[in-house]
Amino acid sequence: MTRRILIFDTTLRDGEQSPGFSMNITEKITLARQLARLGVDIIEAGFPVASEGDFEAVGAIAREVKGPVIAGLARAVSADIDRCWDAVRHAARPRIHTFLATSDIHIAKKFNSTREEILRRAVEAVRHARGLTGDVEFSAEDAFRSDWDYLCRVVEAVIDAGATTVNIPDTVGYAIPSEFGELIRTIRERVPNIDRAVLAVHCHDDLGLGVANSLAAVQNGAGQVECTVNGIGERAGNASLEEIVMALKTRPALFGAVTGIHTEEITRTSRLLASITGIDVQPNKAIVGRNAFAHESGIHQDGVLKDARTYEIMTPESVGLAKAQLVLGKHSGRHAFAKRLEGLGYELSKDQIASAFARFKDLCDKKKEIFDEDLAALVEQEILAVVPEVWSLEYLATSSGTRSIPTATVVLRQGEETRQDSATGDGPVDAAYHAVDRITGVSGTLVSYQIRAVTSGKDALGEASIKVQFAGREYVARAASTDVVESSVRAYLSAINRMLAETARAAGHPPAGPPPAGF
Amino acid sequence: MTRRILIFDTTLRDGEQSPGFSMNITEKITLARQLARLGVDIIEAGFPVASEGDFEAVGAIAREVKGPVIAGLARAVSADIDRCWDAVRHAARPRIHTFLATSDIHIAKKFNSTREEILRRAVEAVRHARGLTGDVEFSAEDAFRSDWDYLCRVVEAVIDAGATTVNIPDTVGYAIPSEFGELIRTIRERVPNIDRAVLAVHCHDDLGLGVANSLAAVQNGAGQVECTVNGIGERAGNASLEEIVMALKTRPALFGAVTGIHTEEITRTSRLLASITGIDVQPNKAIVGRNAFAHESGIHQDGVLKDARTYEIMTPESVGLAKAQLVLGKHSGRHAFAKRLEGLGYELSKDQIASAFARFKDLCDKKKEIFDEDLAALVEQEILAVVPEVWSLEYLATSSGTRSIPTATVVLRQGEETRQDSATGDGPVDAAYHAVDRITGVSGTLVSYQIRAVTSGKDALGEASIKVQFAGREYVARAASTDVVESSVRAYLSAINRMLAETARAAGHPPAGPPPAGF
Repeated sequence: MTRRILIFDTTLRDGEQSPGFSMNITEKITLARQLARLGVDIIEAGFPVASEGDFEAVGAIAREVKGPVIAGLARAVSADIDRCWDAVRHAARPRIHTFLATSDIHIAKKFNSTREEILRRAVEAVRHARGLTGDVEFSAEDAFRSDWDYLCRVVEAVIDAGATTVNIPDTVGYAIPSEFGELIRTIRERVPNIDRAVLAVHCHDDLGLGVANSLAAVQNGAGQVECTVNGIGERAGNASLEEIVMALKTRPALFGAVTGIHTEEITRTSRLLASITGIDVQPNKAIVGRNAFAHESGIHQDGVLKDARTYEIMTPESVGLAKAQLVLGKHSGRHAFAKRLEGLGYELSKDQIASAFARFKDLCDKKKEIFDEDLAALVEQEILAVVPEVWSLEYLATSSGTRSIPTATVVLRQGEETRQDSATGDGPVDAAYHAVDRITGVSGTLVSYQIRAVTSGKDALGEASIKVQFAGREYVARAASTDVVESSVRAYLSAINRMLAETARAAGHPPAGPPPAGF
Repeated sequence: MTRRILIFDTTLRDGEQSPGFSMNITEKITLARQLARLGVDIIEAGFPVASEGDFEAVGAIAREVKGPVIAGLARAVSADIDRCWDAVRHAARPRIHTFLATSDIHIAKKFNSTREEILRRAVEAVRHARGLTGDVEFSAEDAFRSDWDYLCRVVEAVIDAGATTVNIPDTVGYAIPSEFGELIRTIRERVPNIDRAVLAVHCHDDLGLGVANSLAAVQNGAGQVECTVNGIGERAGNASLEEIVMALKTRPALFGAVTGIHTEEITRTSRLLASITGIDVQPNKAIVGRNAFAHESGIHQDGVLKDARTYEIMTPESVGLAKAQLVLGKHSGRHAFAKRLEGLGYELSKDQIASAFARFKDLCDKKKEIFDEDLAALVEQEILAVVPEVWSLEYLATSSGTRSIPTATVVLRQGEETRQDSATGDGPVDAAYHAVDRITGVSGTLVSYQIRAVTSGKDALGEASIKVQFAGREYVARAASTDVVESSVRAYLSAINRMLAETARAAGHPPAGPPPAGF
């Protein structure tokens, strides 16, 4: 019998809260729309109580993204659950996802509590959530390291209290597939009311076993798998969505299970996430890495030419991998341009399309061939990632070389006023940053700096991704230009503008709620 | 009973032949030395028949690297095996590793042969190799997809012929842990002479299961695991050494197995490979990713502060992860400098140390704080990756900005002669590349381009990693400078010099032998 496995995507919650992967609300909505197109069953959109921004993003996704169930995370306390409901209630199919740790080490060290007290709180939280909605998931944080008898009692009790999905996380990525499969089988065998809920798993990759543990759980009866695009998430990340889905699809006889994922959307989804966060997967990442379908060695190439099945267990087409193709040039019209953006998964307003088209025409003057990646960079950096421009770049000139002192002249605009200054540095970027510091009066510490060509050719668009620290807080910013010095300066200005916007907002709305959680 | 699992590292063979990971002979020796320090039991140093360069590298590693067994790969034909022996024979403990595919699809489509013929060839190859040395490994390529009865017959026959290690690869990364464990158990149960050889496994990660399959094999009696640093290798790569080793170490009771790996050398080895190839692991890579030990969420941080065991199953110290530390400054002497390089794993000649020290002093003038990463970049780019300088950079000056046409002036030296030219472009890098093209008369296509800061701070060293195509062949090059335009130009020149050196060498020594293989 072929079972349908539900795919619960937590890229926007567990993934988004890992270092370097934070997204703004527009980016979150864009990614959520692509996740809907990919066909995930549930989108965990965030942790509403964590911050005002998280609350707004979950609410916006609930209102705007159609298709999947929209879930929000909440600790097992009424205030968290109420706040979560206020954000997800706008969805056609909302879910409240509440969690509480059940391992002795968490109960003793984190809560200074007892098993009985934790059981009581879990039941109470689920009852409270069920008073608000019919779709309630309960997660037993650190389930794998919990006492299995006790865990079974908790699972039974929360199902009796109304949980419609019960999740068994391997929070710290400690399990081995044979053991994790055994735990799932144990729960199925010992919990009398288990058939009244969907049994879910949520695995982390600390020992590189997140995907294998998830698949072992499916083999032993789990009906929902929680995972992330590109396997991002806390520490070593979560189980990777694309690997789980393609393993199930590649070995149908073995698993007897299918998912609702449109696998040919996998590559696009992976690249959209990489483009939004500025963080690529490594070339040897399974399914979505640049080399995943590359047959480099001569013997392999020879075999593939004779019969692809000698070395290929799935086709590149099945995951939507097409050769980077020349899509548009300077003679392309606005309609073709808008169509192409739609094809890439962007839903933009008329104004945004007009603005993007103007940027595109500028780019055509500098660059002969425009690839999908150029368009993605353009939309991501110029349209979606916009922050209020407290300071904007009016003019930049740099000179440098092996025997000259790198010098930069910068003019910035703030409202009606322009200010100019120049500075020297170790290189043209350093010099320009110093000039920006002089004009704006702020000074950040550069934590990380990277430039990559987002497509091929000497006239490629260079995308600068930087992380800057101001007064102990880190800001991520990106900008693209054919001139790497200019993209570096625009990214730095964007970080300054983000910092100023956030400082201004914080002055009006003091940050509330606890910091984000993960399991 | 605790068993000792042998770690067979194939970073220099299966890893090195994947796109973007090629290394020159100096880089290979440097990495092999670090692998010996890491404590791997066997280093597969290359595939000697594949090229003159591979042959030389395997020979050099066999002569110079002490400790591990040094293995070379050979197809199951006498000429390959003889060539392999000529390269590895210099080692204190040499191994010939020969392979032949045993799956029906490979036998029929790749070899147009029969099972009996393949069995005969495998036995012959092993006998020939045993005539040369006492340490012979046989790999049954695509073993997992082979008929298991036939595979058992092949294993028995090659052991009778003298194979001391028999390897069972999942060449295409198709297996699921439960099945792969079953195959290993089946071989142990059905092959009567199996105790006369070490049973090895070699897993690929196409479905993200390489590590899980390797561990399932260990649970079912495998005694040797083949893997790579950072999990690099053909397509989605090989099983990752660091994940396998740390899983065995983290769950000793479960596996009852230990390795000889000095785990506190893991981070250094991973970073050395990344530095040599210019390809980083993704931040959420298990064990060695930048985020692998980062506890971002507030709830996790809170838990870790109360008791690290709430969220930490292994310590950062156990894999040698130390905070980036300030190591040297402009007042450091040559002795401290040399000591530090030694500590980082570099073994340099007196001349190389003198040259590195001079570069270090130059760097101190530009940069206040020198980190380990700066030193690694300096040694990698300036000392180890040296190619004959057909063209060297005498002078570079660029100017660019938002309203000016990016212009570059370049002076290059070739022997006694200098030539100068200037050009414009889309940015200062593009302009300088055009000027270099004009002077040298060659013109490459930029396939990929990346700059990253190898340490923190605005005055960080920017390392440019580029891939350039000349007449259909790709050349990787890197260079570091505090000026990103300068590092881009130096990298491009280095690619041109590599291409010219290779073209000159090819004119003298026509390339021989088959292209590289992998399984």
